[in-house]
Amino acid sequence: MATQGQVITCKAAVAWEPNKPLVIEDVQVAPPQAGEVRVKILYTALCHTDAYTWGGKDPEGLFPCILGHEAAGIVESVGEGVTIVQPGDHVIPCYQAECGECKFCKSGKTNLCGKVRAATGVGVMMSDRKSRFSINGKPIYHFMGTSTFSQYTVVHDVSVAKIDPKAPLEKVCLLGCGVPTGLGAVWNTAKVEAGSIVAIFGLGTVGLAVAEGAKTAGASRIIGVDIDSKKFDTAKKFGVTEFVNPKDHEKPIQQVLVDLTDGGVDYSFECIGNVSVMRAALECCHKGWGTSVIVGVAASGQEISTRPFQLVTGRVWKGTAFGGFKSRSQVPWLVEKYLKKEIKVDEYITHTLTLGEINKAFDLMHEGGCLRCVLSTDA
Amino acid sequence: MATQGQVITCKAAVAWEPNKPLVIEDVQVAPPQAGEVRVKILYTALCHTDAYTWGGKDPEGLFPCILGHEAAGIVESVGEGVTIVQPGDHVIPCYQAECGECKFCKSGKTNLCGKVRAATGVGVMMSDRKSRFSINGKPIYHFMGTSTFSQYTVVHDVSVAKIDPKAPLEKVCLLGCGVPTGLGAVWNTAKVEAGSIVAIFGLGTVGLAVAEGAKTAGASRIIGVDIDSKKFDTAKKFGVTEFVNPKDHEKPIQQVLVDLTDGGVDYSFECIGNVSVMRAALECCHKGWGTSVIVGVAASGQEISTRPFQLVTGRVWKGTAFGGFKSRSQVPWLVEKYLKKEIKVDEYITHTLTLGEINKAFDLMHEGGCLRCVLSTDA
Repeated sequence: MATQGQVITCKAAVAWEPNKPLVIEDVQVAPPQAGEVRVKILYTALCHTDAYTWGGKDPEGLFPCILGHEAAGIVESVGEGVTIVQPGDHVIPCYQAECGECKFCKSGKTNLCGKVRAATGVGVMMSDRKSRFSINGKPIYHFMGTSTFSQYTVVHDVSVAKIDPKAPLEKVCLLGCGVPTGLGAVWNTAKVEAGSIVAIFGLGTVGLAVAEGAKTAGASRIIGVDIDSKKFDTAKKFGVTEFVNPKDHEKPIQQVLVDLTDGGVDYSFECIGNVSVMRAALECCHKGWGTSVIVGVAASGQEISTRPFQLVTGRVWKGTAFGGFKSRSQVPWLVEKYLKKEIKVDEYITHTLTLGEINKAFDLMHEGGCLRCVLSTDA
Repeated sequence: MATQGQVITCKAAVAWEPNKPLVIEDVQVAPPQAGEVRVKILYTALCHTDAYTWGGKDPEGLFPCILGHEAAGIVESVGEGVTIVQPGDHVIPCYQAECGECKFCKSGKTNLCGKVRAATGVGVMMSDRKSRFSINGKPIYHFMGTSTFSQYTVVHDVSVAKIDPKAPLEKVCLLGCGVPTGLGAVWNTAKVEAGSIVAIFGLGTVGLAVAEGAKTAGASRIIGVDIDSKKFDTAKKFGVTEFVNPKDHEKPIQQVLVDLTDGGVDYSFECIGNVSVMRAALECCHKGWGTSVIVGVAASGQEISTRPFQLVTGRVWKGTAFGGFKSRSQVPWLVEKYLKKEIKVDEYITHTLTLGEINKAFDLMHEGGCLRCVLSTDA
């Protein structure tokens, strides 16, 4: 390609400081170094983790940076030694890497690859601990190893999944975060069995993906819990069979659910990031076996708590990141499932805008009524 | 038998009120009613749960009562319809019942039978919600459905395990609580695999049984954590391979263990009942898969807490009661394992006294240096 080995100047939405509107800037994107891949991002969605960092709630958040981690694009060029992908491949950047070689990858017990974590956690690339983004020589930090709010980004080769080129990128970009997180929380982390009673706290994209995962796992009852009753109609389409609004009850929500289910649910999922709700989600589980999975990301410094008796009497408290999916291996599999119409994706997309309208997209996310807003980057 | 159908007057240690010395009294023990079994207790050990209730720390503790739940004896007589055991059978009373018919027993997921819980939780028998113990007509409450600090007790038939009559009752009485709790926490709740790194917080009887369980499971490192370094010599005999005294370190103990194990342990067990230690036990677990099991019983009203990030990054928080063993089915199996010398029991017995010396036995337990004190009841 003509751009290979060259610095590319393109448009990106830069977060200069917390809580200030993102600014579309001309950004210089350096060529990929050894083990790196430069990707032309075509579509990127917004996720609450972007808003979380942008809002200054992540103490590890670094500014200025380029946010974004749920996207799809095409490989523009690759650095030395990269064999995982080649220019022209359709890809989904993966904030959760998969190297296949580290202690984590080899354990067979987790998807949390450790290979590039030390670099991506501080907004740089591993080889030289520097950023590939700059504006007139001033470095701009990477975010989650993906930085997809840009027409071009550079990622580690272990952080990019090659997918079927037949897949529509404007849809499957959602398979970079929220949808797999919800599906995987059910399939990989909780391992919900047929006939189970499931409660889902929070009916955003992740909660709805949990519902769909539970439905395909054969759950007999899928109870959606949300303080916005308007969400029930949509939730039904994803598999939710009953709806409980905590505002309609004087009793604590965990007690409401225990009463509704003859002792508690078999599995619960917290998809909000609220530590009080996490407690309720655990305590609404059935004595003896109920398992609660934390999916939401809580604000920094907040803690969960409960009486240890809850665990001694058989409840299990877990969490999940990217639904336990191994990113490079399993994102392509999820794309295939989508192409075979075995999982929903289109149904989560409530809005489409352009990268230039990104601040409006953040507003939409906070207003509710928006599940996923997909931005095209070539506007 | 001559006593069948009769009230038996015998000696029992009565707890008249919290924290006051137990008093050996002449107690009337009524005949067993339908579904009940009267057992001549020959040997009973003391466990920390007895001390916990006696000390007034259990808000559900009822006085006056007859404590004790780790014992062995011989069936004296049975009530109507009892087929599980017959007079003369050697038995271990089980504070955790197993009916085989309730939602819990049928779930295949837990040992927490629910059949008699509503009665045993309030110190009475299920059929008439009354006690079988009295002194001159004044009822004395049951405790944990067992009340073994008495020469005779009455239990529900679902709360008694028939064992091999060849087993020495003065030893296998320990299989009524502490030893199975520790072994089962490893084998049933955590399911420790060969090669695992294990940390045990608290090296009393339960902690040592965890060590033995981990050793037989093939753990590669078994790290004992206790503030009393004198316990290490004994702990070695049960399988502990390394010892850490938190008092020797300035860093939080979870950090000490993470450093010592290249990222954390695979499994940890809290065998003390201290909520701060429960947190440390979780947080010393390896990211991605480390599982922490709460075995100890915390004081009433106390809560555990941690950052949800600990769970989202793959740690699992669980608990166990009676080590997850199904009591009537599996206590006899544990007795056989003891007879085949596959598990230790004798090695936990550091003291033997008589029922009349029970207050001295409680003192011994609090002094340390005592693992289990077994009381003979026919003194």
